[in-house]
Amino acid sequence: MTATEHLFLRACRRQPVPRTPIWMMRQAGRYLPAYRAVRAKASFLDLCRTPELAAEVTLQPIDEFGFDAAILFSDILITLPAMGIDVAFPEAGPKIGKPVRSRAEIDALHVPDPTRELPYTLEAIRQIKKGLADRVPLIGFAGAPLTMLTYAVEGGGSKDYAHTKKLLYGAPQDAHALLDKLARTCATFLEAQVEAGADAVQIFDSWGGIVSPGDFREYPLRYAKRVIEMLRASPTFKAKSVPIIYFVNGCAPYLDDYASSGADVLGVDWRVGIDEVRRRVGDGVALQGNLDPGALFAPPAEIRARVADILARAGAVGHIFNLGHGVLPETDPEHVRAMVTAVRELSAQA
Amino acid sequence: MTATEHLFLRACRRQPVPRTPIWMMRQAGRYLPAYRAVRAKASFLDLCRTPELAAEVTLQPIDEFGFDAAILFSDILITLPAMGIDVAFPEAGPKIGKPVRSRAEIDALHVPDPTRELPYTLEAIRQIKKGLADRVPLIGFAGAPLTMLTYAVEGGGSKDYAHTKKLLYGAPQDAHALLDKLARTCATFLEAQVEAGADAVQIFDSWGGIVSPGDFREYPLRYAKRVIEMLRASPTFKAKSVPIIYFVNGCAPYLDDYASSGADVLGVDWRVGIDEVRRRVGDGVALQGNLDPGALFAPPAEIRARVADILARAGAVGHIFNLGHGVLPETDPEHVRAMVTAVRELSAQA
Repeated sequence: MTATEHLFLRACRRQPVPRTPIWMMRQAGRYLPAYRAVRAKASFLDLCRTPELAAEVTLQPIDEFGFDAAILFSDILITLPAMGIDVAFPEAGPKIGKPVRSRAEIDALHVPDPTRELPYTLEAIRQIKKGLADRVPLIGFAGAPLTMLTYAVEGGGSKDYAHTKKLLYGAPQDAHALLDKLARTCATFLEAQVEAGADAVQIFDSWGGIVSPGDFREYPLRYAKRVIEMLRASPTFKAKSVPIIYFVNGCAPYLDDYASSGADVLGVDWRVGIDEVRRRVGDGVALQGNLDPGALFAPPAEIRARVADILARAGAVGHIFNLGHGVLPETDPEHVRAMVTAVRELSAQA
Repeated sequence: MTATEHLFLRACRRQPVPRTPIWMMRQAGRYLPAYRAVRAKASFLDLCRTPELAAEVTLQPIDEFGFDAAILFSDILITLPAMGIDVAFPEAGPKIGKPVRSRAEIDALHVPDPTRELPYTLEAIRQIKKGLADRVPLIGFAGAPLTMLTYAVEGGGSKDYAHTKKLLYGAPQDAHALLDKLARTCATFLEAQVEAGADAVQIFDSWGGIVSPGDFREYPLRYAKRVIEMLRASPTFKAKSVPIIYFVNGCAPYLDDYASSGADVLGVDWRVGIDEVRRRVGDGVALQGNLDPGALFAPPAEIRARVADILARAGAVGHIFNLGHGVLPETDPEHVRAMVTAVRELSAQA
């Protein structure tokens, strides 16, 4: 089977598939005992920056569950230190010592050269590709500009995104200057990941869903589009016809605009019906999602019923099964297996 | 002007109004210097539990900005200690010492008698009504069952609501037992607030937006409906024809079901277009919202443009202007004034 024939890539392109492919956001992560064993020996950041370890944990869920795609083990914040923003990763969540809030601080940031400044990620990709031996495709990823702005400006998690909104609405020119740098960082990094071997890329707009529909067009969508346009213009992307996935967590309010991102695949979080999304975004894109990560706390029979419901709503063409957000660390791996089995069995075309 | 003629109450009932009424979630709060002066003398919980102080801060924004409704100063968590759950209110946000997670802990909770166990809230309402002297109506409020469950189970704020979802999907019978108690607590408390003088009530489902559409029907909506049915059956509510507002933060995914709550008014957060909400919920209910609280960081001219946009989308009948969520503490009171002025001027019917 050549790379372009993989189920996952076929579904990204809305080609017919014998069954719906599945992967899972954060599939390499804390819910897996094998991951925790590796993590016990290295800090989170060391794990991201050590190609051998990043490759090892990336492959674990492929070996364990037979997911139809691997996703690079890394973190969307990995680009920030290279841009000039220090980040720490304590257990309570990432923390930025000196959040970026002034124009001078924005102007001081630089767009990293991935080959020179993020070499460990590219090397991890090369090692993962070797380890995969073309069993399944590899997804690279980066944080979308608005989401990266939010982290950089808030300095960590936030309930109300007050600093972000002060910047967006109180100093929009500064916001645009920062978003421009973040868009170039995102595009450059994804291009380098594809050159290193990634077969598809996902742009994570985890915090793209915190604004009104008009501001969605003005900020997250506009800069995601810019990233996607830069990627489409890249010879590397053209040559391999690399699928681009755009994922906005909390996409329900923006469905009339979501498809205009230009992505091949739109990520769908668990809050919205995937059939409603299909109705509103049209047939020109594939959809990826959308089981509630919390639904994996339910008994296996209930998980199976929920999988069946999503498969029926999504239809057989242009659907990649996934959770609507990252798997929760407290999840029982056997419940993950129940989900994978259900998707394989219930989506099989007669 | 009798109480039933107030702009706010007329809009709740979808009666014609000479201009759109406005109030603001958390209008009595930290963005106001007068509030901070009172708060400097008392803890948050003391403020909630001292009728004179609660009444004083409730009236401040009415005097300062001429809002068209007052809302009781209190907190949705105020019922928890009376149910048997200890809550502290440090600056970082409410914290529950011993979260409720087992069936035994759920069974130990009791539905409070407001007259005996929440007397300070009812006395605050009587004092506020005196202070208002019928200038504007008073809104009472309580937390919706699912939102209260989430606080009780998580023990405070949460990123992923893992404990909530473990209960909902892993032990649904226990979840329903807890939701039943929380629904009775909510209804009993709101009924007592109306008996004490509240002219309308709002049910806050701040965390109602964390589930899939099917789970929205099964959990937050089902129990909000139950509260509303209990209130509709109450002679007090019938006699005064008291409007009921139901507010789900993050309502966009549930618009096909939202109107079936039975509320007179649906709260609309800022993420979704209020015109889309109107299209999807029909003409049988009033809508309240929906400026992004963060938009108050914009210059006054931009605030005015955003107000005009929302007024145009909402239409003149059955609209109560509000923010889409609570005003942020960092907000400049003069920007609040700019919003109020814009609503008054731009919504005036020729």
